[in-house]
Amino acid sequence: MGRASKGKAAAGSAPVVILVRPQLGENIGRAARAMLNCGLSQLRLVAPRDGWPNERAQRAASGADVVLEQAELFDSVAEAVADLQRVVATTARNRELSQRIVTARQAASEVRGWIGGGEAVGLMFGPERTGLENDDMVHADTALTIPLNPQFSSLNVAQAVLLVAYEWAASGDTTPVERMSEHAARPATKEELTNLFDHLERALDQSGFLRHKDMRPSMVLNLRALLQRANMTEQEARTFHGVIKFLSKGKHED
Amino acid sequence: MGRASKGKAAAGSAPVVILVRPQLGENIGRAARAMLNCGLSQLRLVAPRDGWPNERAQRAASGADVVLEQAELFDSVAEAVADLQRVVATTARNRELSQRIVTARQAASEVRGWIGGGEAVGLMFGPERTGLENDDMVHADTALTIPLNPQFSSLNVAQAVLLVAYEWAASGDTTPVERMSEHAARPATKEELTNLFDHLERALDQSGFLRHKDMRPSMVLNLRALLQRANMTEQEARTFHGVIKFLSKGKHED
Repeated sequence: MGRASKGKAAAGSAPVVILVRPQLGENIGRAARAMLNCGLSQLRLVAPRDGWPNERAQRAASGADVVLEQAELFDSVAEAVADLQRVVATTARNRELSQRIVTARQAASEVRGWIGGGEAVGLMFGPERTGLENDDMVHADTALTIPLNPQFSSLNVAQAVLLVAYEWAASGDTTPVERMSEHAARPATKEELTNLFDHLERALDQSGFLRHKDMRPSMVLNLRALLQRANMTEQEARTFHGVIKFLSKGKHED
Repeated sequence: MGRASKGKAAAGSAPVVILVRPQLGENIGRAARAMLNCGLSQLRLVAPRDGWPNERAQRAASGADVVLEQAELFDSVAEAVADLQRVVATTARNRELSQRIVTARQAASEVRGWIGGGEAVGLMFGPERTGLENDDMVHADTALTIPLNPQFSSLNVAQAVLLVAYEWAASGDTTPVERMSEHAARPATKEELTNLFDHLERALDQSGFLRHKDMRPSMVLNLRALLQRANMTEQEARTFHGVIKFLSKGKHED
């Protein structure tokens, strides 16, 4: 292992990710990929088992090479967190330490607040088998536990990084929770829908489908409600006019 | 590939996961592991490329074998969704289809509502390279897109399953967002803290640290504020009494 690099001033627009004694190169690469997907790019490695750089990590990074190339190497957790002001440590187990434990979602929200206040923040993860030791955990302000199935809780480190990084990304995401695909034409106006309903009802009157006068009002209302629910675009309303026209024509040709 | 199994009545307490034409056995295994971590256990496979069962899937499942053993096999998406009432399809790309698109978090909330209403719900994912085709997407009520880094969006299918399944788990999770570790003794009462502050201040008075009368009030207040902020347990307060006692003793022995 090379000499530990010197921690740079870490305050920035996103937290750094610290992997403590990671074992499998694949997991380092997958963690890097997960990070970049979620807008994180600063990676610190503390004493990776198989040395650094690691070819298996590069193969597993699937294009997130930039994260691995810029990764900083440290001999100890103390050095890796030296320039940080807040450290959140992910742990699956309860410890003997008396420590504040938050969910991943709560952590993301707090980290965003600290980052917004100009603080340098680290998200720390332990080795595959054992997780973080108490000696590592005391460098953290806060423990983070991802609430999962109590009967089967078996995330590897790359999966844990993905979920924590995802919560970070989600905490700052402004995507509307619901929208229409960009290819969708504009939604139909209510006038366009009323014209469509009128066309359909004329065609159904002519075809004899609405011949029972006492049932006609509820039939018409139910059909209108069904078509309202489809949230048609203007293009779809026009297509439906065509459908009615051609079905009616077939009827008359009988 | 064997004959497609018959879809059972799928309504239950959780959605089923449908992997459409998955390519790598590893990703099927990792998806199963991700599912079980998040409390999902019903897996359906549509035309997996390398046949079924798949040894690589089993190796990657890391203990989630039960999900693979109970997985159902289908020849087509139409068969795999036949008994479902709602299908949410995960897609990275915008399609030519006019379709409602929701975030993973919104989808989880809606799915929980449908499940609560007794509906049978499926979460559908496409193959590694290409994702779901339009012919697959028309079987879905809703498209789900995970909002990630627009400059690097490269999740594999197992990672996508993990994030969507995680949102499902999180939408029903009742873990307090913040708590103390279970090993923590009970928090100190304010009386115990006041006794500690008094002990510290007596010791500091005797040591001469608070000898400047004009600075004493603000010094004392700042120390009290600092120790309040630590949210001590009753045990830690007792430990701290010992610290003060022994440091004072050292002082007197000088």
